[in-house]
Amino acid sequence: MGGVSDVTRPADEHDKFLFDVFAQRCPSRSTLEHLTGKWGTLAMVALHEGTFRFNQLRRRVDGVSEKMLAQTLQALERDGFVHREAQPTIPPKVEYSLTDRGRHTAELLLGLIQDVESQMPDVMEARQRYDAAR
Amino acid sequence: MGGVSDVTRPADEHDKFLFDVFAQRCPSRSTLEHLTGKWGTLAMVALHEGTFRFNQLRRRVDGVSEKMLAQTLQALERDGFVHREAQPTIPPKVEYSLTDRGRHTAELLLGLIQDVESQMPDVMEARQRYDAAR
Repeated sequence: MGGVSDVTRPADEHDKFLFDVFAQRCPSRSTLEHLTGKWGTLAMVALHEGTFRFNQLRRRVDGVSEKMLAQTLQALERDGFVHREAQPTIPPKVEYSLTDRGRHTAELLLGLIQDVESQMPDVMEARQRYDAAR
Repeated sequence: MGGVSDVTRPADEHDKFLFDVFAQRCPSRSTLEHLTGKWGTLAMVALHEGTFRFNQLRRRVDGVSEKMLAQTLQALERDGFVHREAQPTIPPKVEYSLTDRGRHTAELLLGLIQDVESQMPDVMEARQRYDAAR
């Protein structure tokens, strides 16, 4: 924790960051992992499209297992990015949505995804070049 | 691949995205994972600070193993985000830097990290509330 060991960041930026993802034991490291890990980004960006029930979200995030999606959502809920609403119906209806803070972060992740998708023709070319040289 | 199944995106956005990270077999999924996976984001943002030799980068990305960093860098190099320069000295000097495309994407990841770090007081509070309610 504490960006003090970070000699490369401008000094005036230090005060803004009490937390430092580059420090292994800083809790921000786990939060970053919840948002970026194998399913975090896709779950966040899916929820940016609206409110989902669990199974709807599972279909949207193609390839995720029930267990991994449940773990992903629980971590994001605990960090305050995702809101879980259980309605006392029979059967119970559970809906997931973004909190205000979650929506803010989901927009950054959406920007990243759009950036990646738009770069893919170049990425495919780079992969071909890399593989051909080996 | 193909955003055709994505009924929630506005129609005019479809043409821009031939690739769709939400489709499990789209190659953009793996590129997103290289950039976000456990070490991708930290490696990219570290390299945004400048050129690093392997062991320097390993120290900067606190906690990464030699094997994981090597895998991470190789995937990012193959996708064209990272440039690997081996100089024919004895011992050989290998340096890693961002390509232009990598720098562009690293800026988005840096924005994400700064966002996460600045939200951490709220995240810690959310975690306490979540744990107390269970």
